[in-house]
Amino acid sequence: MTTVTHEDVLAAAGRIDGLVLRTPVLEVSPGLFLKLELLQHSGSFKVRGAFNRMLSAGSLPPSGVIAASGGNHGLAVAYAARELGVRAEIFVPEVTSPVKVAGLEALGAHITQTGAIYSEAAEAAAKRAAETGALGVHAYDQAEVLAGQGTTGLEVAAQTGGVDTVVVAVGGGGFAAGITLGTLSSEGSSAGGSSGSSEGGAPGAGPRIVAVEPERIPTLRQALRAGEPVAVEVGGVAADALGATKLGGLAFEVLSGPRVESVLVTDEAIVAARRTLWARHRVAAEHAGAAAYAALLSGAYRPAEGERVAVVVCGANTDPTTLTT
Amino acid sequence: MTTVTHEDVLAAAGRIDGLVLRTPVLEVSPGLFLKLELLQHSGSFKVRGAFNRMLSAGSLPPSGVIAASGGNHGLAVAYAARELGVRAEIFVPEVTSPVKVAGLEALGAHITQTGAIYSEAAEAAAKRAAETGALGVHAYDQAEVLAGQGTTGLEVAAQTGGVDTVVVAVGGGGFAAGITLGTLSSEGSSAGGSSGSSEGGAPGAGPRIVAVEPERIPTLRQALRAGEPVAVEVGGVAADALGATKLGGLAFEVLSGPRVESVLVTDEAIVAARRTLWARHRVAAEHAGAAAYAALLSGAYRPAEGERVAVVVCGANTDPTTLTT
Repeated sequence: MTTVTHEDVLAAAGRIDGLVLRTPVLEVSPGLFLKLELLQHSGSFKVRGAFNRMLSAGSLPPSGVIAASGGNHGLAVAYAARELGVRAEIFVPEVTSPVKVAGLEALGAHITQTGAIYSEAAEAAAKRAAETGALGVHAYDQAEVLAGQGTTGLEVAAQTGGVDTVVVAVGGGGFAAGITLGTLSSEGSSAGGSSGSSEGGAPGAGPRIVAVEPERIPTLRQALRAGEPVAVEVGGVAADALGATKLGGLAFEVLSGPRVESVLVTDEAIVAARRTLWARHRVAAEHAGAAAYAALLSGAYRPAEGERVAVVVCGANTDPTTLTT
Repeated sequence: MTTVTHEDVLAAAGRIDGLVLRTPVLEVSPGLFLKLELLQHSGSFKVRGAFNRMLSAGSLPPSGVIAASGGNHGLAVAYAARELGVRAEIFVPEVTSPVKVAGLEALGAHITQTGAIYSEAAEAAAKRAAETGALGVHAYDQAEVLAGQGTTGLEVAAQTGGVDTVVVAVGGGGFAAGITLGTLSSEGSSAGGSSGSSEGGAPGAGPRIVAVEPERIPTLRQALRAGEPVAVEVGGVAADALGATKLGGLAFEVLSGPRVESVLVTDEAIVAARRTLWARHRVAAEHAGAAAYAALLSGAYRPAEGERVAVVVCGANTDPTTLTT
C-alpha cells in the first residue's frame, strides 16, 4: 500500500492552487471555528482530490476521466473535468434522482445509469475504464485523492492560527485522513498513523482529529475494532454522502493513528445540527456536512475549557427547502 | 447634522469587538471577493450598528432599548439587547408576518404590533420611547449606527488586502455610508463626501463605492438628483429590507461624495443573482443580500480588466424554501 505523507499534501496544494477555493473560516465564538468547505466549487471538498488526481497523471488520455458516484464525488469529477477541458464519464446507479443526474449533465458529464446499487455502477465503471483507458478517479481510496482532500487541513491550520482539535466527518475516510496529514505540524512531517516515520520531528505531531460518523455508518469504528477495514451496513440521513460500505485502506493507515479519536452521532443529532447551522449561522449544509458539528452540539465530543476547535462543514449539496423542516 | 468620521468607525470596531462576528471573505475568482456578512449574528450586518449605538450610550436606561422594524433591524436590536442583558421593545406594523414576530419573540423581545404600515409603527415607538425613556435605535440615520455598520468596511480592507471597488446595497444608506467611511485608506481620515476635511491625507482616498439600489427603491438616485433626501415609492422583491422611503441625512452626506457611484438593478436581476449565489456558491442570501451581486451579474456595473472588487452579501433572513424557485 502506498503511504501518503504531509509532503504529498503540500505538493497537492501547489498543484491545485487557483483551481479550488480557499474556503473561509468563521470564528463563531472565541476559539470555535467553522471551516466552510461547503462553499467549495461543486458544493463539497471533493474537487480538491479530483483535481489533484487528474493533474498528477501528467497528460490525460483522450478518453478523459471516469468515476462512479451520483453524489458529491460525481459532481466534483464532472466539475474538475470541465475546468480542465477533458471528457468525464460518470456512472450512477439507476436509483439516482433525476435532480442529481441533471446536475451532472449541466456540468457536461456523460452519464451512464446502470446497476441497482452503487457497487454495481462502480463495477461497470471499472470495466468501462479498462476498455477506454480513461483515468479512474476514486471517491476516497487513492493516494492523490487523499492528498488533495488534505489541503483543507493546511488551510485550517493557516486560517485559524492553529487549533487543538479538528472535528471532521468520516465516510470512506479520505477527507478525514487527508486532514490528519494536512494538519501535521511542520516539525512533524511523517505519514502519521502506525506507519509513522519521521523527517526532523516527532511523528504524529498536530491537532487531535475527532473523526465523526453516523451511528448507522460506523466504517471507522468497525475498522478500528477489527484491525482492518470491514464492510458495514449503511443507512440513515447522511448515507447519500457518508455511505461508504467500508473504510478505505489508505485512510485506515492514517486514521488508526494515535491522534485520531472516533466519535459516533445519532441521526437525530445530525438533523438538529443541520437545522441549527441554518438557524444560528445561516450555513446551509447537507446532512453529511452537519455531522461534525453534531458531535459538538450533542455533546458526543466535549472540548475542554479553552480548547481551540475547528469544525469542518464539508458539503452543501442539499435541497434547501428542507433546511427548516 | 453630526458628521461621522473614519475615526468613529475605528472606535466602533473597538467597542463591538467580540460581540459581532468577523464575517469571512470568499475569493470566488481572482480579485473578486464576496464579503459574507449574511453569516453575521441575527443574519445581517445590522447588529454592528445596534451594538455600537447601545454601547455608546454609557449606561442604558432600565426601560432598555426600543426600535421599530419587523425585519433585519428589529432582529438585530433584539439580539444585541439579549446579549447585553437589557430589555428590548420592538414595534412592528400589523402586517408583519407571524414568522418574523416569532423570530423576535424567540430573542426575548417585547413586541407591539401596531399601525397599518411601518411609519405608523415607528411613530408609536417614538411616542413610547418619550414615555419610558428607552434608548431609541434607528435603522440607519444615527451616527453610532452608521459608524457601527462601517466596521464591515474595515474588515473588507483588511481581509482582501485592499480592493479597487466595493459593491454594496443601499436602502436607508447607513450600511453603504458606513462602509464608505470604513474603507477610507489610513492616509485619508476625513469624513468623506462633501464635508471632507483632512488629517494627514487626501480627503476621500479609498476604493470606489458602487451603491446598488433596486430600480423600484431609488432612494439614493433620487436624493442625488434632488440634492437632498426625498421620499420615493417603495416596491419590489427587496422592499422588506431595502424599503426605506427616504435616504438618511447622514448617509446622504457621505454617499453624495466623489467616491460613490450610484447603480440601479432590476428585480429580475436580483432574483437571478440570489439564485446564482445559491447554485454556484451555496450562499443563501435574501433578495436584498443579493442586490449588490446583481449589479455585477447583470452588467449594471462592469469592472475593468484586473479591477479588484469586493461584493458585500449583507443579509440571509430568507425563506430557504424559495432559494431554487
